[in-house]
Amino acid sequence: MNNKVVTFGEIMLRLAPNGYLRFNQVDQFQATYGGGEANVAVSLANYGVDAEFVTKLPAHEIGQAAINDLRRYGVETKHIARGGERIGIYFLEKGASQRPSKVIYDRNHSAIMEATTADFNWDEIFEGATWFHFTGITPALGDNAAAICLEACKAAKAKGIKVSCDLNYRKKLWTREKAGQVMAGLMEYVDVCIANEEDAADVFGIHAANTDVTKGEVNHDGYKDVAKQLKDRFGFEYVAITLRESISASDNNWAAMLYNGEDYFFSKKYAVRIVDRVGGGDSFGGGLIYSLVNNYEPQAAIEFAVAASCLKHTIEGDFNRVSVAEVQSLAGGDGSGRVQR
Amino acid sequence: MNNKVVTFGEIMLRLAPNGYLRFNQVDQFQATYGGGEANVAVSLANYGVDAEFVTKLPAHEIGQAAINDLRRYGVETKHIARGGERIGIYFLEKGASQRPSKVIYDRNHSAIMEATTADFNWDEIFEGATWFHFTGITPALGDNAAAICLEACKAAKAKGIKVSCDLNYRKKLWTREKAGQVMAGLMEYVDVCIANEEDAADVFGIHAANTDVTKGEVNHDGYKDVAKQLKDRFGFEYVAITLRESISASDNNWAAMLYNGEDYFFSKKYAVRIVDRVGGGDSFGGGLIYSLVNNYEPQAAIEFAVAASCLKHTIEGDFNRVSVAEVQSLAGGDGSGRVQR
Amino acid sequence: MNNKVVTFGEIMLRLAPNGYLRFNQVDQFQATYGGGEANVAVSLANYGVDAEFVTKLPAHEIGQAAINDLRRYGVETKHIARGGERIGIYFLEKGASQRPSKVIYDRNHSAIMEATTADFNWDEIFEGATWFHFTGITPALGDNAAAICLEACKAAKAKGIKVSCDLNYRKKLWTREKAGQVMAGLMEYVDVCIANEEDAADVFGIHAANTDVTKGEVNHDGYKDVAKQLKDRFGFEYVAITLRESISASDNNWAAMLYNGEDYFFSKKYAVRIVDRVGGGDSFGGGLIYSLVNNYEPQAAIEFAVAASCLKHTIEGDFNRVSVAEVQSLAGGDGSGRVQR
Amino acid sequence: MNNKVVTFGEIMLRLAPNGYLRFNQVDQFQATYGGGEANVAVSLANYGVDAEFVTKLPAHEIGQAAINDLRRYGVETKHIARGGERIGIYFLEKGASQRPSKVIYDRNHSAIMEATTADFNWDEIFEGATWFHFTGITPALGDNAAAICLEACKAAKAKGIKVSCDLNYRKKLWTREKAGQVMAGLMEYVDVCIANEEDAADVFGIHAANTDVTKGEVNHDGYKDVAKQLKDRFGFEYVAITLRESISASDNNWAAMLYNGEDYFFSKKYAVRIVDRVGGGDSFGGGLIYSLVNNYEPQAAIEFAVAASCLKHTIEGDFNRVSVAEVQSLAGGDGSGRVQR
Amino acid sequence: MNNKVVTFGEIMLRLAPNGYLRFNQVDQFQATYGGGEANVAVSLANYGVDAEFVTKLPAHEIGQAAINDLRRYGVETKHIARGGERIGIYFLEKGASQRPSKVIYDRNHSAIMEATTADFNWDEIFEGATWFHFTGITPALGDNAAAICLEACKAAKAKGIKVSCDLNYRKKLWTREKAGQVMAGLMEYVDVCIANEEDAADVFGIHAANTDVTKGEVNHDGYKDVAKQLKDRFGFEYVAITLRESISASDNNWAAMLYNGEDYFFSKKYAVRIVDRVGGGDSFGGGLIYSLVNNYEPQAAIEFAVAASCLKHTIEGDFNRVSVAEVQSLAGGDGSGRVQR
Amino acid sequence: MNNKVVTFGEIMLRLAPNGYLRFNQVDQFQATYGGGEANVAVSLANYGVDAEFVTKLPAHEIGQAAINDLRRYGVETKHIARGGERIGIYFLEKGASQRPSKVIYDRNHSAIMEATTADFNWDEIFEGATWFHFTGITPALGDNAAAICLEACKAAKAKGIKVSCDLNYRKKLWTREKAGQVMAGLMEYVDVCIANEEDAADVFGIHAANTDVTKGEVNHDGYKDVAKQLKDRFGFEYVAITLRESISASDNNWAAMLYNGEDYFFSKKYAVRIVDRVGGGDSFGGGLIYSLVNNYEPQAAIEFAVAASCLKHTIEGDFNRVSVAEVQSLAGGDGSGRVQR
Repeated sequence: MNNKVVTFGEIMLRLAPNGYLRFNQVDQFQATYGGGEANVAVSLANYGVDAEFVTKLPAHEIGQAAINDLRRYGVETKHIARGGERIGIYFLEKGASQRPSKVIYDRNHSAIMEATTADFNWDEIFEGATWFHFTGITPALGDNAAAICLEACKAAKAKGIKVSCDLNYRKKLWTREKAGQVMAGLMEYVDVCIANEEDAADVFGIHAANTDVTKGEVNHDGYKDVAKQLKDRFGFEYVAITLRESISASDNNWAAMLYNGEDYFFSKKYAVRIVDRVGGGDSFGGGLIYSLVNNYEPQAAIEFAVAASCLKHTIEGDFNRVSVAEVQSLAGGDGSGRVQR
Repeated sequence: MNNKVVTFGEIMLRLAPNGYLRFNQVDQFQATYGGGEANVAVSLANYGVDAEFVTKLPAHEIGQAAINDLRRYGVETKHIARGGERIGIYFLEKGASQRPSKVIYDRNHSAIMEATTADFNWDEIFEGATWFHFTGITPALGDNAAAICLEACKAAKAKGIKVSCDLNYRKKLWTREKAGQVMAGLMEYVDVCIANEEDAADVFGIHAANTDVTKGEVNHDGYKDVAKQLKDRFGFEYVAITLRESISASDNNWAAMLYNGEDYFFSKKYAVRIVDRVGGGDSFGGGLIYSLVNNYEPQAAIEFAVAASCLKHTIEGDFNRVSVAEVQSLAGGDGSGRVQR
Repeated sequence: MNNKVVTFGEIMLRLAPNGYLRFNQVDQFQATYGGGEANVAVSLANYGVDAEFVTKLPAHEIGQAAINDLRRYGVETKHIARGGERIGIYFLEKGASQRPSKVIYDRNHSAIMEATTADFNWDEIFEGATWFHFTGITPALGDNAAAICLEACKAAKAKGIKVSCDLNYRKKLWTREKAGQVMAGLMEYVDVCIANEEDAADVFGIHAANTDVTKGEVNHDGYKDVAKQLKDRFGFEYVAITLRESISASDNNWAAMLYNGEDYFFSKKYAVRIVDRVGGGDSFGGGLIYSLVNNYEPQAAIEFAVAASCLKHTIEGDFNRVSVAEVQSLAGGDGSGRVQR
Repeated sequence: MNNKVVTFGEIMLRLAPNGYLRFNQVDQFQATYGGGEANVAVSLANYGVDAEFVTKLPAHEIGQAAINDLRRYGVETKHIARGGERIGIYFLEKGASQRPSKVIYDRNHSAIMEATTADFNWDEIFEGATWFHFTGITPALGDNAAAICLEACKAAKAKGIKVSCDLNYRKKLWTREKAGQVMAGLMEYVDVCIANEEDAADVFGIHAANTDVTKGEVNHDGYKDVAKQLKDRFGFEYVAITLRESISASDNNWAAMLYNGEDYFFSKKYAVRIVDRVGGGDSFGGGLIYSLVNNYEPQAAIEFAVAASCLKHTIEGDFNRVSVAEVQSLAGGDGSGRVQR
Repeated sequence: MNNKVVTFGEIMLRLAPNGYLRFNQVDQFQATYGGGEANVAVSLANYGVDAEFVTKLPAHEIGQAAINDLRRYGVETKHIARGGERIGIYFLEKGASQRPSKVIYDRNHSAIMEATTADFNWDEIFEGATWFHFTGITPALGDNAAAICLEACKAAKAKGIKVSCDLNYRKKLWTREKAGQVMAGLMEYVDVCIANEEDAADVFGIHAANTDVTKGEVNHDGYKDVAKQLKDRFGFEYVAITLRESISASDNNWAAMLYNGEDYFFSKKYAVRIVDRVGGGDSFGGGLIYSLVNNYEPQAAIEFAVAASCLKHTIEGDFNRVSVAEVQSLAGGDGSGRVQR
Repeated sequence: MNNKVVTFGEIMLRLAPNGYLRFNQVDQFQATYGGGEANVAVSLANYGVDAEFVTKLPAHEIGQAAINDLRRYGVETKHIARGGERIGIYFLEKGASQRPSKVIYDRNHSAIMEATTADFNWDEIFEGATWFHFTGITPALGDNAAAICLEACKAAKAKGIKVSCDLNYRKKLWTREKAGQVMAGLMEYVDVCIANEEDAADVFGIHAANTDVTKGEVNHDGYKDVAKQLKDRFGFEYVAITLRESISASDNNWAAMLYNGEDYFFSKKYAVRIVDRVGGGDSFGGGLIYSLVNNYEPQAAIEFAVAASCLKHTIEGDFNRVSVAEVQSLAGGDGSGRVQR
């Protein structure tokens, strides 16, 4: 049986100066499109999975351009509601060395922010679907968006569809209190929980027990403890935690851990020279969902997800444009970067 | 005595595909800044006039970039209020031949739209000023903006500052009824009224008497009649009307008329191959204000204003980047385009 | 009932210097994709018609990029065969004024040229289709391609699908003799024949009777005669002939005629300032098919088709990126090019 | 016998904003190379003539880049002296419609301006040469440059090499008095004199007799008279005069006349949509020399030269990148600009 | 009381190939503006300090573009003299890994090089100023420039304005002997002396005592000794020395030391991945002046200056476009480069 | 006596996305030219050696553009045969970090692939030549190409011209068996053999004796053994082996060894941050030939060759655009990357 994965959330117009130029140096912006759940859908489409992205976009040409970009990568867009006032925008200035990347959001009043549950018929959308994915950004867009999320989760459960969620806490969108309350209500429908090293603390106040999370192996124990607490509280099937070490805006170490309720599977760690870091977490989610819907063993699953997201850091734009073969080659050990002729 | 001209309104980020590409063909946008009153301020600064632009802009780097662009051309920006959520944006797709240019506005919720009268101290702003200019776009931004305009007009009058207004009716911002009512309240403070061939009808319901405005000389009579009605109703010192003939998106004819309450002064007509048509009307306003603050005779004034705006059509971006010498050369008859070595 | 149009042919990588630069001046090429039947499919998809393009493309990333570009505009690509050695390429240098545009073909040995009838299952492809379109370029690609065309035509007829063909004679691909022979064999399946002023003569040796086709009204009679001869010989339902007057590489006049076996319908003539002339004929085909599948009256049909292709001349790339509303606005008389705000 | 043409003068780095942007709008300049005599050499090399360009350039990489650009088009560069302080630069802002192109020279102190006769061994340079060309710009560079020109002319005459000169008066480089005096001294070595409609008056005070040069046929008589006076005074074999009508920076009419001492041969007149007008006169010189060294009849010669330079106006950069076949096609009457497939 | 800092020197047009392309590979140059003292002024303006830059620039549009670029960043330009022949130019090719960056100067005969003391009225310029800064490049431009520097220094001292100087020895502009003599004459007016590891030796023959300056801690002693000798000889209030370790064109280590006559304050050392190294020293000067006019403690001052210049290495162009908050964040320890959302 | 080096092989059009963009993300390709032997010719021309490149290219403008690019760098092109159907193309996607660069070849049916021995007159081509160079790619193009290579080798030997060959095994062009057989036949004419760490095994089945080539000094022994076996089998004068350690697509270590039949000379090892890795091996060949024709001592020769190719990794495009002075500076120890002012 084919897998069909539906993701739901916001896709934004991303405006970025070329290269390492600063915002106030430029008279050109790169114009691409991206957003947590859209990025996951593109990842999956690139892996050959039937992937559909659901959102609401204005009827004008810029809204259409976002749809066109999704279609280009093979993402199904037929249930995207059209209407509303504007598409969310984010401005991205790429950092280098000690200078961090900078994101300015201009996403308020976007079509998806002002959408209502009436815009989406989940029974129809989930026709034939086997997996549903969203991130913590979507319910953070407002009460309407949270309500739509909840409806989608319920519809998914009713149809026996697996649900994954990347906690993805964004402090500019809501407070920790609000996040904790809303997200807790959604977690009961979630089977696979993805988080980075801070999300569990920010959203649910879950900290690693009896250890100050600082360095080395201690860290591993801390992450295990966080994963276990998440599992214990919400009953997830899987908890995945990404482990980023930010050396500078140019160099990061990147790894992750998968917990299946019994064992903890740690991936290899990659030393990455960064081309574009945005979407790194989403590409991990895309890789993880791919490996889970294809029934990879836990160690293979986490290696695939981390290799996929390692590669994303070398690719411009939010979307991870890599194939299964490319991910498997890296996961299988070839990170030498030798020319493929 | 030096002249100092203050203009007030919105400046937006303008995002445009390169060349003649369509919105959904591109992954780069040209990023420049513009807006009716800002464009006038830049024109005047380029002519050596002390020009100041007043608005409200968000505190972030994109807001700063708009300010930097104004400063680059020598416009004073010190009274620009900082704060609010976002800078207005407009997307511009350049037309060619039979394909019209297309503008998508994304300006709602901008800092200036949500500004209040408390953001501006007009007594301080008008210190040393001799002229104030705004357009019909600004009061159309909302009741707050209209209230600020009114305060500015009153403050200007109280200080003996001349006031000019370009009617600039925008149907997406308000209805004709609302426009007519609000603008009428402002007109009593206005000395110089600028309009295109449709504004007087749209805003004030003023149509040319006993003639169907169609072609040739009849047109001239129609415009005279409209100017006279405007003058009679509001007591303007000058009424200027621009006369555009749109042959296609690539070719326009361009001329204007100035009425000083006694005589009607028609300019030469230019056949223009268009490079960038946006800001054409504003460059006329800038040229007219320049010639009036320098006490040009009416015929010379209208010739300067039309030559200035003719040149604007050959320049990329909203701003008219021409010097007094360049305008005078064209107004004086040299439109041969021979290389200036 | 929805219409579904299938087109079949070659899509090539188009490599073009930017602006008006010559081939040997540049170190960048614009890389887009296009080809007669693919261009028609994109036109139709932009008009909201279900459009599918069928071809064969190599399995590598450049072949995929061609598919992605089609998908971006909503064209169905699921029956595109993958395999073969290469994608056809054409180099395009844009002309200006007296300097003509220049095309260098590098299309030999392309995947579609070396495809066989085994690559396509027309019964499956035509599932639900109502219209099939190809051009004279496809059978000119070689005997295999001609055989596939013939199979497709037969399958279409068997299913009651309308068939249209743009004669599109290309002297670099085959001789007039070969063209005449092969095309005659295909014409019996064709309902709608599209040609420019030279195709009928080049392919079928059909010339206007008793007149030297030169200027003005005489021309009209000549075109009528050619259309009638085509109809009489092959029994087409419609014959459409495009009328291009090449003033220079920058300026063309553009019009067309439609013959329904009874009357001759001449469109308006447009004076076009050219942005990109390549794909002009295909956009006419796309417009004509759209209007015919939507049962436009003949005069309305030819006006729509000509307005659509007039607009194409203002758009970069082979594909015509315009909407029904835009075409109708021009066909309805608004060629003023005034800014659409 | 093969022809070998030597040209001598200055080649400059040309810095130009992209498109129609103004100098103070840009953060990129197009960097190409050009200069009157270098342009002629490139024209000839493109026509398959052995062409050599002689100048002096600094030893650094920018000097080398100028040489590389000449080599790219097949111009021999082996006698270019290396040394001196700098390469001359000119900034070019492209005009459009009523806005003229603008040139800012930054050429003082260039290597060629400060070169001396010791830098060039004309006996060696002229080995095998059959033609020598220079323009009035070169002696205008200073007394040293004028002295080198004189030495070159003498050496050419001594070897029986034909000499051509384009008067090319540049008022920023010298006064009319100085020009008249220096150029008169060089003219005795010149066989073919090229001038535009003003050069003869500026340099030699030669005006059309008994006529105010204004319009139409009168003009023709005026040009004839000027050519005859030039011939009578200096004994030229040929006098060629280019006839430019500047309608605007976007549109020019272009034609020329050739006088062989007996008859006056007027070319066709071309209405040109300008892509890049700089180098237009030089491309005429290149075309004329080509046709004369190939012994074209006078009418054919002037048609070739004018068609060549007509095409130059459609090509970016100083250099005329066209082939003999392209020029002949236009001279032969095909200015339709139809796509060459 | 507000601080106002005046800097004086040359601003040049900087022409650089894009990315890592070499000079003879390109047909585009990035065109920006920069120069030691201009760079310092921009740094300070970005920090909110009233900063004014004084120089002489030609009256033409390229001169104006340099001024516009300064204004864009808020630098006061009203005392820039206009006139002279040309703006200095430098060509910059960016290095990578083992290939060094290369600079070709074309700065002779620039307006500022040929300016005289009559061009500047320092009493007027220094109205309200609290600090004056220049570098060793300016007096190296020639005797006139040195005389202007001296006048400026004397005027500054007479008004109680602090004076800082970055020694900045440039061997292409003058000999060590000449530099030593002229600079010594200026040092008596200088309060704050900035130097890199070689300047003191090149200009004043001051070497570290009894040690071969090679590695590690020894180095620190050497720098201390040089700073002390400078202080002892010229009585500076502060001596700052930058410590660059060039690993390759892509990687440098960067640190500095400040000596206040009593103690030696060493900054943190940053390992920098270089985006653009030019202007690195000037950004240190800008940071140091900022921290001193704001009365930072010595350790905080040197940390701010080094963090500021560390960030400059990640920014394209001569100018350091960073805010006080960004510098403080890095100086305070956050060099992780994590995305700022 | 001057040296003249002739190289023979294929030059291809290289199409590469800008920066690190992937193939299916772009609508622009960088268009440059390159190929093993052409790259060597350009290296040598840049070093001042008379270098000629021989191939066959189609007569059209893209073929001409390849020639123009060679001429630009001073390579003699007069014996390039013109004709055939197409120029080979390769698509290059630049990798970064763990993502490898990817090459898609579209070189079949190229003019040089379909050339025959009749296209080249080696007696004439080798007039005055002292060195002939080819790579294993050329005979791999097909039997015709191998036959031309053989003819060239014989002609070279007959004239006492030294012959060098870079083994350069390409598995997509031929099998190991075929390669081994054809190459063995050519080796008898070869004096200098260049190989990387895998070529000897791939082509001739030569592996390092009694050691698993893994790390450190063992490696050195392995390479020595391979070199000795090559020498013993074919009697080469020199065997050079390049030693690349691929850490990632961004970072490589680079070194080489030269064996003169007596001693083994190992170069320094460079840690390279890669700008463009393609052509790295060819630049080694170019450096080696330069040092051998100039009779460098073996250690100096291998240091020059490795420094040359180290620099190539920092340069965009296939061609190594460096001077002798630049290579010598690095070979002499200055890899600090300090700005050269």
